[in-house]
Amino acid sequence: MVKKHIYIYSPSGAVRDKAAFKRGVKRLAALGYDVELDADALSSHMRFAGDDDTRLAAIHRAAASGADIAMISRGGYGLTRILDGIRYKTISKAIERGTQFVGISDFTAFQMALLAKTGAVTWAGPALCEGFGVGGAPDLQPDDIMEDCFHDMASGQGEGTGWRQNQAWPRATPLNVHHATVWGGNLSVLASMVGTPYFPSIKSGILFLEDVGEHPYQIERMLTQLLLAGILSSQKAVVLGQFTGFTLNSHDKGFKLNTVVAWLQSRLKVPVLTNLPYGHVQTKVLLPVGKSADLAAEGKDVMLVWGH
Amino acid sequence: MVKKHIYIYSPSGAVRDKAAFKRGVKRLAALGYDVELDADALSSHMRFAGDDDTRLAAIHRAAASGADIAMISRGGYGLTRILDGIRYKTISKAIERGTQFVGISDFTAFQMALLAKTGAVTWAGPALCEGFGVGGAPDLQPDDIMEDCFHDMASGQGEGTGWRQNQAWPRATPLNVHHATVWGGNLSVLASMVGTPYFPSIKSGILFLEDVGEHPYQIERMLTQLLLAGILSSQKAVVLGQFTGFTLNSHDKGFKLNTVVAWLQSRLKVPVLTNLPYGHVQTKVLLPVGKSADLAAEGKDVMLVWGH
Repeated sequence: MVKKHIYIYSPSGAVRDKAAFKRGVKRLAALGYDVELDADALSSHMRFAGDDDTRLAAIHRAAASGADIAMISRGGYGLTRILDGIRYKTISKAIERGTQFVGISDFTAFQMALLAKTGAVTWAGPALCEGFGVGGAPDLQPDDIMEDCFHDMASGQGEGTGWRQNQAWPRATPLNVHHATVWGGNLSVLASMVGTPYFPSIKSGILFLEDVGEHPYQIERMLTQLLLAGILSSQKAVVLGQFTGFTLNSHDKGFKLNTVVAWLQSRLKVPVLTNLPYGHVQTKVLLPVGKSADLAAEGKDVMLVWGH
Repeated sequence: MVKKHIYIYSPSGAVRDKAAFKRGVKRLAALGYDVELDADALSSHMRFAGDDDTRLAAIHRAAASGADIAMISRGGYGLTRILDGIRYKTISKAIERGTQFVGISDFTAFQMALLAKTGAVTWAGPALCEGFGVGGAPDLQPDDIMEDCFHDMASGQGEGTGWRQNQAWPRATPLNVHHATVWGGNLSVLASMVGTPYFPSIKSGILFLEDVGEHPYQIERMLTQLLLAGILSSQKAVVLGQFTGFTLNSHDKGFKLNTVVAWLQSRLKVPVLTNLPYGHVQTKVLLPVGKSADLAAEGKDVMLVWGH
């Protein structure tokens, strides 16, 4: 069997953890992938992986690579400021030819803009360093579930995912959503695109959100923006992934993430589901952004099915 | 002369620093003001100054108070989530009757929403605790310039303000802007309202921005949102106030606030002026949000004049 070809490029922050980068490349090779590195994958310009032109060129080289998978080295910050330099049709044609784009975090900006401009499907999933470059010690290995989902994506075998919520679906009748577009990603990045021409106009979709390092009040403020802009109420479901890396303090006096989730559901007729295994965590699934899917929830169990 | 009447209320975060609150009230009394405290000015519900209904009632009591000035106790977080419960016409009528609303930070949400819904003028200026409640030791007194500007606002004497930029106005001919609406405030709060019905549609205005505790890359991401949404390019001038309370790190490698300012100016034909004495700092002016003003810049000197 011909090895799948993965092209690694850096559209956002500079790679500082070279060891993680190397471990990731080695891991992918050990898993049977043919890994190609973009010439500027390790470039650095201030906090960016090269200046704006360098990163734009890297994105377009990834599109021209003919690889099966184009995966970012890492997230960080850098895509929002170059959105008007990306040739979206070129990217969508590469996707039509069979290159699957995958990434997380800052990559949400690329995914949303591409979806808005072309409707092309990309994958929310691991970046090289944080996904495959983790660890170094024998007990710190890339997560099995993430790797299985990645193989499914690479081989076109993935059909969906299931998980258990924190709280049971509160209504007597199960939730069933059909033919809804899966979209979303990092809440901070997504909220920072509202009102711009790069924000996709998805109605009756399944919107998933995750974030890291944002206090619940900041999460709530961003959700409020989506709420007041009418974006949440026009979806079929809002699915909250993992929100990690924040610290509550004495001023909060009981205000916490669950407070925000309960408040959101109180303000929204659209169902709010929780605990999607996706975000800045090791155990995460891959999600096809822009693809039509069915979603079913009963009790704590949720199934999201997008077929081939 | 009849004392000016100040009504203190809490629409956002709970007051934790009671000593600062008391010092502020005492200071205003010593300055010759008649201070009235809202019944829930010191209420606390989680991180908020009372639950949503409590804070909405406090806002409407401030509007009904007949005071010359309605001033918030402090900012924090809490206004964006109650924007759809505020009776904006009631507020604008109170302003017509002579009550001037003043505040900062989270208060930007109230000011933007009121401007969007009614066009009423409010003041960007001190909150009780951080403005007048500062210190306690003899060498920590409220700032003279801020107090002078406050008296000017209270007496209707304020006509404008002048300051020196960090860098000189780069063009040979001086900048002259006439009859432009002054608007803006806290960048995080303002950006979190883009795309919602509470964001004012101000064209050809003078947009001022400040923030605290946001890293330059976050400031840039928020400015990018305003840029890509077409909000910055439709103004006559963008005026940057004080951006404070962040820490650069080794990943930045030369990326700093000035990098962001230079980048913004490179992306924008509209002039970007700097160093407005306004923000989360002691020395700050008061600015009439929603009022028409003239702005002139030559070399480092800037004058903003709004008349009576």
